[in-house]
Amino acid sequence: MIIVLKPGTTDAEFDHVIERIHQLGLKPHISKGEHRTIIGVIGDESKMQAQPLQAIAGVEQVLPIMKPFKLASREFAKKDTIVEVGKVKVGGGHLAMIAGPCAVESREILDEIAGSIKKSGANILRGGAFKPRTSPYSFQGLGEDGLKILREIGDKHDMPVVTEVMDPRQVPLIERYTDMFQIGARNMQNFDLLKEVGQSQKPVLLKRGMSATVKDLLMSAEYVLAEGNPNVVLCERGVRSFEDSRRNMLDMSAVPNVKGMSHLPIIVDPSHATGRPDLIPSMAYASVAAGADGVHIEVHSCPEKALSDGPQALLPPKYAEVMKQIRKLAEMFGKKY
Amino acid sequence: MIIVLKPGTTDAEFDHVIERIHQLGLKPHISKGEHRTIIGVIGDESKMQAQPLQAIAGVEQVLPIMKPFKLASREFAKKDTIVEVGKVKVGGGHLAMIAGPCAVESREILDEIAGSIKKSGANILRGGAFKPRTSPYSFQGLGEDGLKILREIGDKHDMPVVTEVMDPRQVPLIERYTDMFQIGARNMQNFDLLKEVGQSQKPVLLKRGMSATVKDLLMSAEYVLAEGNPNVVLCERGVRSFEDSRRNMLDMSAVPNVKGMSHLPIIVDPSHATGRPDLIPSMAYASVAAGADGVHIEVHSCPEKALSDGPQALLPPKYAEVMKQIRKLAEMFGKKY
Amino acid sequence: MIIVLKPGTTDAEFDHVIERIHQLGLKPHISKGEHRTIIGVIGDESKMQAQPLQAIAGVEQVLPIMKPFKLASREFAKKDTIVEVGKVKVGGGHLAMIAGPCAVESREILDEIAGSIKKSGANILRGGAFKPRTSPYSFQGLGEDGLKILREIGDKHDMPVVTEVMDPRQVPLIERYTDMFQIGARNMQNFDLLKEVGQSQKPVLLKRGMSATVKDLLMSAEYVLAEGNPNVVLCERGVRSFEDSRRNMLDMSAVPNVKGMSHLPIIVDPSHATGRPDLIPSMAYASVAAGADGVHIEVHSCPEKALSDGPQALLPPKYAEVMKQIRKLAEMFGKKY
Amino acid sequence: MIIVLKPGTTDAEFDHVIERIHQLGLKPHISKGEHRTIIGVIGDESKMQAQPLQAIAGVEQVLPIMKPFKLASREFAKKDTIVEVGKVKVGGGHLAMIAGPCAVESREILDEIAGSIKKSGANILRGGAFKPRTSPYSFQGLGEDGLKILREIGDKHDMPVVTEVMDPRQVPLIERYTDMFQIGARNMQNFDLLKEVGQSQKPVLLKRGMSATVKDLLMSAEYVLAEGNPNVVLCERGVRSFEDSRRNMLDMSAVPNVKGMSHLPIIVDPSHATGRPDLIPSMAYASVAAGADGVHIEVHSCPEKALSDGPQALLPPKYAEVMKQIRKLAEMFGKKY
Repeated sequence: MIIVLKPGTTDAEFDHVIERIHQLGLKPHISKGEHRTIIGVIGDESKMQAQPLQAIAGVEQVLPIMKPFKLASREFAKKDTIVEVGKVKVGGGHLAMIAGPCAVESREILDEIAGSIKKSGANILRGGAFKPRTSPYSFQGLGEDGLKILREIGDKHDMPVVTEVMDPRQVPLIERYTDMFQIGARNMQNFDLLKEVGQSQKPVLLKRGMSATVKDLLMSAEYVLAEGNPNVVLCERGVRSFEDSRRNMLDMSAVPNVKGMSHLPIIVDPSHATGRPDLIPSMAYASVAAGADGVHIEVHSCPEKALSDGPQALLPPKYAEVMKQIRKLAEMFGKKY
Repeated sequence: MIIVLKPGTTDAEFDHVIERIHQLGLKPHISKGEHRTIIGVIGDESKMQAQPLQAIAGVEQVLPIMKPFKLASREFAKKDTIVEVGKVKVGGGHLAMIAGPCAVESREILDEIAGSIKKSGANILRGGAFKPRTSPYSFQGLGEDGLKILREIGDKHDMPVVTEVMDPRQVPLIERYTDMFQIGARNMQNFDLLKEVGQSQKPVLLKRGMSATVKDLLMSAEYVLAEGNPNVVLCERGVRSFEDSRRNMLDMSAVPNVKGMSHLPIIVDPSHATGRPDLIPSMAYASVAAGADGVHIEVHSCPEKALSDGPQALLPPKYAEVMKQIRKLAEMFGKKY
Repeated sequence: MIIVLKPGTTDAEFDHVIERIHQLGLKPHISKGEHRTIIGVIGDESKMQAQPLQAIAGVEQVLPIMKPFKLASREFAKKDTIVEVGKVKVGGGHLAMIAGPCAVESREILDEIAGSIKKSGANILRGGAFKPRTSPYSFQGLGEDGLKILREIGDKHDMPVVTEVMDPRQVPLIERYTDMFQIGARNMQNFDLLKEVGQSQKPVLLKRGMSATVKDLLMSAEYVLAEGNPNVVLCERGVRSFEDSRRNMLDMSAVPNVKGMSHLPIIVDPSHATGRPDLIPSMAYASVAAGADGVHIEVHSCPEKALSDGPQALLPPKYAEVMKQIRKLAEMFGKKY
Repeated sequence: MIIVLKPGTTDAEFDHVIERIHQLGLKPHISKGEHRTIIGVIGDESKMQAQPLQAIAGVEQVLPIMKPFKLASREFAKKDTIVEVGKVKVGGGHLAMIAGPCAVESREILDEIAGSIKKSGANILRGGAFKPRTSPYSFQGLGEDGLKILREIGDKHDMPVVTEVMDPRQVPLIERYTDMFQIGARNMQNFDLLKEVGQSQKPVLLKRGMSATVKDLLMSAEYVLAEGNPNVVLCERGVRSFEDSRRNMLDMSAVPNVKGMSHLPIIVDPSHATGRPDLIPSMAYASVAAGADGVHIEVHSCPEKALSDGPQALLPPKYAEVMKQIRKLAEMFGKKY
């Protein structure tokens, strides 16, 4: 950690800063420049980051040197983590091809969609039973009935399933039915929920919040890891921006950026990132080319009657076409799925 | 609601759109232009907003006309809502002057701070017992012990208290000790939590999410109102932006903007919005001048030893100075507190 | 265009709106709903967009239906435009592989870089002679001497050249030396400059402004096209965002988004979009997979001594490696270069 | 400046970094920590900031300590600068009350508006003769005829005038007619234009770019100051954001933020910042309460027929009302105008 003092700091202020550093059991290295004094502080950085050193009189800036996350960091594990979702591997060269409707609506519709996407190459089935809707008046999901249908259809088509959990109280219920928890963008910093799924061993698909930095995302992953669950898959799904012609702005460079900072797998969700079916195929290709460990796409056999997010779903034949191209790309980049 | 068709829409597509509108029990008004056909749809807009009409072939845009929130809207109540927090009124000309430390750390420190801010004119005491921290390794709050201290010190100084709730399971516990729930920015779209406090009658201080639009904020208020709790106070606390010289960007015009759209009170939190004590006083003055129903300021008697967010706290004498100026402004704008 | 009236609009206000519409030679279609009246206005939309109808009493919203750009729009030309830069084709299946140093620094360095990138597959040479620098104290470019060197080295290696123009007064000078004008992000809405290059027939590489929407970008292209120069190549180069771990946020979905709205070619500049050499290769691959008409990469043989933007340049051997992969991707997607 | 090395940097890399520092005539201070080595570099920071030290192998981060602007900095002048626009003082306790229509449309309309705002307390008249319009098909201003009218009406009502300059070639022409140049948001980083007005002695009203940080704004001011023109007034006018219910997001805390970093005056333009007349009055009050050195408001006597930006203009009686309140605020805060 580096402490930069203000120009014109008094000797008393300087001495007080040095005293505080010693109190914390740390060692200061002092560089007096023409205009400013800089203090390099050596020792346990996490101890320092918890201290409000910036509030001390005379301190202009406190610059952390170490990253605030540990278990999620690339330094912690040089090798890419491979997360197992049922029998499907994610990361380290293995691609997750997650697909399905936004919400579980009925056994018949889900069965039809699952059969079709499985044939196209999807390896994990998604579907929401508890839906986070902006409006209290929108369809909120089928609840446990939805979970049962999802489990049954997943088993029928031999695909592990993933579904969203929004409330820490739902964790035990959802754990009985699902192979992977999804934490949605709106709950990325719902720390109690993160701790709760951290106490399970089931994999967690952690979506990036709408205005979360990549560092924030990794800090949230750290919450899950710190509770003892090492099975976290990150998901880029677009962030809020001034651009109003699509739902969100897909931050594609988050993929290599995360891979440099962390050993955890990261996939991309072009469906929520764009909200527009015409943009999804090319963004799915770009994701694989960018090095993502998978792609998450919403598919619905009748988007215009879907109870949630219909307008952004791909039709099954379109999904089949996209998957053909992805297969070629995966091969070129040496990825398996 | 208005449906705009793509240029070159076929007759079959057009007929299908019209048929869907009739199926929903609605009436289409058709305007055929030179380049595009526009369909005005008359009827229950909320019914339409739940439908994925955008997914129908031939549809270019669906433009909602009505706002998606009802109970929170200015149309629902022309008169400003006055929320009572203990004996303190907020809204309709009454200012909430909320102050206190970020976290409850000990009885002694809180007592000292509370005594001082009360004298300066604060009328509601804040302090966190459960803290949402970005890092799992940071101080997470004193829990129930913190709640007890907060209650005791609030009573001693005759100030109602507000504290953050992060987990729906904590609602009954916190309700026993607090006069007002705070929902933090990170939980603004934690819908299960919103529903839970909506079932209480205690007032809710709902902070704007870091990338929430004003409409999103009002939709989240709607969740609380729809459950039967009419006592919601909104809080502008800055949003994420590209500007890196302060913590967040205080969106001051959200104050008159919300007042035009809603009858609910809205206060401003310049402490979290800026994260810098040198910017807080002028932002507090600006908030009152902009028409805010109160100001929320963090105060700590020893910021450099605070366990959470010390660097952004004002010292008690500085707070006293700020409050003197605010008193004059309040008078000029005909506000009471 | 659609005009939505406020609830409670008086008859006099309504009549005044209708009168204004008739004055403009347009025809109103009126739909009276339960809560609001909607007026569809048929006629020349550009005439209407120039009118401040929103300022009329009783008007709540004015919703344009048509896009505000014409010559740049997909409706204007169904077929992709192919722009010729010297002998190099860009668009319609032809990829522009633009590379070179940020600034022209000396004949020797540019010659070395040009020889190397040409061998790797670059087909257009870039290099700045007039540099837009945030600080007045930074290197501002070699001026005309730089232009001469760029021309000479381009000819030697048989590559057309592109260089930035910042001032309308420089257009004639730069036109003598270059094959393509570059308009930088900071000048995307420098309308006098756009008009000036619009009067040339040399192609224009128009970079997206740091907070420009895709629509803004196309409006700026419209300025060039409207002056009579049809040779515009757009360039996505990242936008400003809250994410602080890279220079900008590459908006990858702008590529298919622009292609849906316009017939103009669009390339991607991952160098400026990320500012980090470790992220550039994967973003270059993703750009081609997303359907971009080319990639713009800064290459320098000694980044640590570059006079401008050294830290983001790729070394020539790294560029060679990236181009090998791009060649395979281009083939897979049926693109030539 | 501080250089942080990557963990695992080799001795050869370390030596190379130290050698480069010595080559630049600077002195390194080395702190070897457990995980990372930190090098404090003492000497002329501006020399270092021009060097791409980040590109050297082994370097993880380069952290500048000094601000990159000098003449604009608070360190350069402790006392607030007072800029004189004709006989009107701006800064150091003097408020600029700039008002007028977006564009000069005719002698009659401007005369009517000027007479009215002068009576209400405006002290500088604004009006555009050259208009930067997003669309090439929108009204582009009256040009020199507009300048003549502006000068004549300003003289008649004894108000200095300010008008926008967009093209460096227009500077001599506009200088003949105006008392102050306005540089619009879109040209904040049009460096050739900044240099050109920097060679005049007429004051410059420099508006913040739509995605400019406060530091960027001060760097652009530095361009003008470095050419020898010390008369710069900054203007906050809102930045681009995700919030779509208003034109821009007024960054109110930029006012005290700039005042801490610079001695230059800063005013606020709530008209362009919000684009909505219902939000302008409260934002004008908030600006004065926040410490701004003036307020810039667009006023038009018939907004619905204005040739540019009519919907955001205040009517003259509304402006009169706003100015009454501002007068009281100015008094409370000890400001003159």
